[in-house]
Amino acid sequence: MSARPATPLLDRVHLPADLKQFSDAELVQVAQELRAETISAVSETGGHLGAGLGVVELTVALHAVFDAPRDKIIWDVSHQSYPHKILTGRRDRIRTLRQKGGLSGFTKRSESPFDPFGAAHSSTSISAALGFAVARDLGGSCDTGHGDAIAVIGDGSMSAGMAFEAMNNAGHLKKRLIVILNDNEMSIAPPVGALSTYLSRLYAEAPFQDLKAAAKGAVSLLPEPFREGAKRAKEMLKGMAVGGTLFEELGFSYLGPIDGHDMDQLLPVLRTVRQRATGPILIHVLTRKGKGYAPAETADDKGHATAKFDVVTGKQKKAPSNAPSYTSVFGDALLQAAAEDSQICAVTAAMPDGTGLSLFAERYPSRCFDVGIAEQHGVTFAAGLAAGGMKPFCAMYSTFLQRGYDQVVHDVAIQRLPVRFAIDRAGLVGADGATHAGSFDIAYMANLPGMVVMAAADEAELKHMVATAAAHNDGPIAFRYPRGEGEGVDLPERGEVLEIGKGRMIRDGSRVAILSFGTRLGEVLKACETLGSKGITPTVADARFAKPLDRDLILRLAAEHEALICIEEGAVGGFGSHVAQLLADEGVFDTGLKFRSMVLPDTFIDQANPADMYAVAGMNAADIEAKVLSVLGVESLGKRA
Amino acid sequence: MSARPATPLLDRVHLPADLKQFSDAELVQVAQELRAETISAVSETGGHLGAGLGVVELTVALHAVFDAPRDKIIWDVSHQSYPHKILTGRRDRIRTLRQKGGLSGFTKRSESPFDPFGAAHSSTSISAALGFAVARDLGGSCDTGHGDAIAVIGDGSMSAGMAFEAMNNAGHLKKRLIVILNDNEMSIAPPVGALSTYLSRLYAEAPFQDLKAAAKGAVSLLPEPFREGAKRAKEMLKGMAVGGTLFEELGFSYLGPIDGHDMDQLLPVLRTVRQRATGPILIHVLTRKGKGYAPAETADDKGHATAKFDVVTGKQKKAPSNAPSYTSVFGDALLQAAAEDSQICAVTAAMPDGTGLSLFAERYPSRCFDVGIAEQHGVTFAAGLAAGGMKPFCAMYSTFLQRGYDQVVHDVAIQRLPVRFAIDRAGLVGADGATHAGSFDIAYMANLPGMVVMAAADEAELKHMVATAAAHNDGPIAFRYPRGEGEGVDLPERGEVLEIGKGRMIRDGSRVAILSFGTRLGEVLKACETLGSKGITPTVADARFAKPLDRDLILRLAAEHEALICIEEGAVGGFGSHVAQLLADEGVFDTGLKFRSMVLPDTFIDQANPADMYAVAGMNAADIEAKVLSVLGVESLGKRA
Repeated sequence: MSARPATPLLDRVHLPADLKQFSDAELVQVAQELRAETISAVSETGGHLGAGLGVVELTVALHAVFDAPRDKIIWDVSHQSYPHKILTGRRDRIRTLRQKGGLSGFTKRSESPFDPFGAAHSSTSISAALGFAVARDLGGSCDTGHGDAIAVIGDGSMSAGMAFEAMNNAGHLKKRLIVILNDNEMSIAPPVGALSTYLSRLYAEAPFQDLKAAAKGAVSLLPEPFREGAKRAKEMLKGMAVGGTLFEELGFSYLGPIDGHDMDQLLPVLRTVRQRATGPILIHVLTRKGKGYAPAETADDKGHATAKFDVVTGKQKKAPSNAPSYTSVFGDALLQAAAEDSQICAVTAAMPDGTGLSLFAERYPSRCFDVGIAEQHGVTFAAGLAAGGMKPFCAMYSTFLQRGYDQVVHDVAIQRLPVRFAIDRAGLVGADGATHAGSFDIAYMANLPGMVVMAAADEAELKHMVATAAAHNDGPIAFRYPRGEGEGVDLPERGEVLEIGKGRMIRDGSRVAILSFGTRLGEVLKACETLGSKGITPTVADARFAKPLDRDLILRLAAEHEALICIEEGAVGGFGSHVAQLLADEGVFDTGLKFRSMVLPDTFIDQANPADMYAVAGMNAADIEAKVLSVLGVESLGKRA
Repeated sequence: MSARPATPLLDRVHLPADLKQFSDAELVQVAQELRAETISAVSETGGHLGAGLGVVELTVALHAVFDAPRDKIIWDVSHQSYPHKILTGRRDRIRTLRQKGGLSGFTKRSESPFDPFGAAHSSTSISAALGFAVARDLGGSCDTGHGDAIAVIGDGSMSAGMAFEAMNNAGHLKKRLIVILNDNEMSIAPPVGALSTYLSRLYAEAPFQDLKAAAKGAVSLLPEPFREGAKRAKEMLKGMAVGGTLFEELGFSYLGPIDGHDMDQLLPVLRTVRQRATGPILIHVLTRKGKGYAPAETADDKGHATAKFDVVTGKQKKAPSNAPSYTSVFGDALLQAAAEDSQICAVTAAMPDGTGLSLFAERYPSRCFDVGIAEQHGVTFAAGLAAGGMKPFCAMYSTFLQRGYDQVVHDVAIQRLPVRFAIDRAGLVGADGATHAGSFDIAYMANLPGMVVMAAADEAELKHMVATAAAHNDGPIAFRYPRGEGEGVDLPERGEVLEIGKGRMIRDGSRVAILSFGTRLGEVLKACETLGSKGITPTVADARFAKPLDRDLILRLAAEHEALICIEEGAVGGFGSHVAQLLADEGVFDTGLKFRSMVLPDTFIDQANPADMYAVAGMNAADIEAKVLSVLGVESLGKRA
């Protein structure tokens, strides 16, 4: 571990109010110390680094000028909120970030009154801030009182339609509302979309050596000494339709761009806005992701997400990897399929790396579409591609696909279009916690008529499922797989096309059958080893499909065993519920069957390492063993199932 | 029935290619005849009238200039597609619109090759068209070949973030793509949002007596004779940042505004675009909803949706109403609650009438928020209101709430914020068909930790549930109710606050218990009457809550009966699945229980009147009776359950 940095001024800050004691010059030093503290903390915990480093000065300036928690500072996505956490009474726990029982890697209402609105998915901050602004003006009863509502949102998050909807509505309502556009020129992936082009043009045409209140509306807001300079700056921006910027069209006063690392720009602008803003105002702030830490600044991803690392060298301390990740197996399998079929294409929503499509994008750039943070469009765009005769794979995390749910129903399922949904991060995800858990996709996909829903039990199965999806061209199909490394099984040279709606037997046993859907199969087999030593030999099958169900397999397992246990990494309403519906319809329960369905518990599970999360969820081998013993009425030394 | 209009030219049009025989002057007459035919048809069928009348000339011009189905004309929402259907080989069936076995009230891929992409929900057309454009350029194998991709989208639909996402992505991809913005100054509700203000300004500053290709990029596209006039027109638009319009910022060439009822503007502009367009182009067309039919033009809603009517007088032939609609009961109950609690407020997504909030908006304008077609923002805005101490009711149709699903999960449920979801149009809806069915909300809401989910069995129950939701302030709560009239029960003066998670006994019986969730209770009771005459007296209970379940009630019903039948108007994965999970966990199936769960079938059900749809779904009294007889092993003369 590197020595902790010296932070004499920061040590005097316990709550944001403590910042008021400092001069502007001292605040510059506070920011330096805060940057060092952030780097030091993340070096010990791992996590999101680049985004936080980019907003160190902005964080200090916001808390120095505004009055949280009365003023509501809402960080969009909020992976950039570590410096904010350090300044708001959580410095003593900052080295527990993203760990079990520790601080969340995101803002969280239950963690601190300084987090008025939690986040983790993008583009929600303006909607939430508008809600606070309206509640303030209507006299809502808020524990922390009511002040300004301030959304801090990155340029990548602005590509989501939701942000546009919120800006549009805010422009219409005309409430006092502050939106800070943190334009760091890079969201997770390289900039995509015309919006980035637009922002880049603003940037290129308006270098920010000086404060520029370029917009008409903004100039009058400025303190007198700035006005003349701002007017001149504005005149210099010839050819640029400042009065017609995107933001002003939507009803916002536009102020900027200003240098987000220069406290001499940030502090006066924020003070002016605080004193004089009336309606909705957008402050355009330019920052650099990873700012001030060379290893992050020079990294391709600007230190977006990092393992623990050495502060001096920036070298990450990753645990050695044993098996390829599910994500990379998917990426490789799709690449292989695309080489053989020129109609295979891929859609991602700002996650080419996260979904394993980077290599695909490199190899087949004309067939890979990064639509930006825009899941709604992404799904329907894929539906259009399918209607036009292509074979699109829509690769999204389970939790983000929720953003495109109506499009899955309305544009894909109702029209029976052959869109292939590659659902990554299905199930529990570890350090990102509840907001990133993929708990609901089995339920919300499997109840759609005509949808085929698969889950991979291991990485070889995933390869088969990619091949199956590629070959399935008469309706939609989805396959889910978890975050993290595979099981370490041998990968076949080629994936084989599975028969739709057919599961597979894993091992024959007696008395109890365990029917697994997805990657809990490994734990099931572990449980069977222990059970074997107790004389219990469960039959085990891998369902492969939640829809259509393998009726024959399920009814046979039910008929030949006194107990049937389903297990899936998803909430109630999914695989086990479909099995129960079948068993009920067929009258299997009429004469008795010890049926159990192991699903994720009815709680949002906080971050921890995956094993701990599975323990909380009751999904580990020990839990499965206990469930078997309990259902068979055998005394167990383990916990009650 | 009024006499059919004389349509000599239209009679010669069987497919769009037949339009090529006409001169431009004759096309004007074709449009007049098409308008008369549309009015005549809708007078017999009822349906969406105003939107279609607004695009009669545009429809004729598009089909005269372009070459469908090779060119893909994609109507957004597509309630304006009746004239399109008449021109594309479906005139002989146009008087079956929205009826069982007849034409859909929307575009539908399975209905015609001239409907390349179905719709009904708004704002999907640009994404779909972009998909077709890309598939064309990549050589997708499309049955109808590949030509231009043309999205026709109304200004109301442009407020949805999804449209913004699609424009943004299209501007980035730079494919040839045509978007026609049908600016009719009114979507379903009066214009909301800053975008409408923006469009109105464009309109006000650019009267359209002449063709105006106002934008830089557009001028060069025009045929020579138009160029000079266009340049002059542009110069006249002083003060208007034409080069910086919203659309151009997103990478589109902007052409317009042009008069959408003037064929002398429409035809040359479309021909020019067809000949010369390269990248994405937006044509801004101004139309009037209800155009050319005085009763529609003068109606408040511009003839948006109508019952059958008399063509001469415009008077609608509505069946007399026996009971208030669920929607109006909700609206009245909320009004009553709001009168007593100033923190109650309401959020609607462009549906103040449809969700029964119009009176609320009139009485409490500062507490009623129509966010436009923007469900994602609407839900998170409501979450922000709740975090700020207000008591928001978020009133949306079941099928549209799907648009805000991630926001329900991420912003409301995870944070346990007390947003009240009033879910209208839950279950089957009749003439609007599968796209509007509310089939999935029970499943997708009830599997969210901490969510309370209720369904009203009748309109008095709905009133109780509004009161219950108003009083429930420590987490989210949802209540669902169907389209149409109530059961005709007496309405209490005030709704009473129900105990959370407690159902109610309706009648005591023996052998079989029926546990109903929602409005199928009426059919259950009808079935019981018939069953009684056969000596079978089922116990009946109203679950009221799908979450939390009334464990005591369910376990008691199971213990005291040989059979338990659940029924709900929703897909598998919802109420019945939660009951099955409970029964399994409690070991009730171990020793045998004749358990059945009646849910919506695993198909998308086409439009019909509600009774017919329920028959298809197997949800009528006769189906319930048959299920009871079957599960008890009693011979039935009815159909097999």
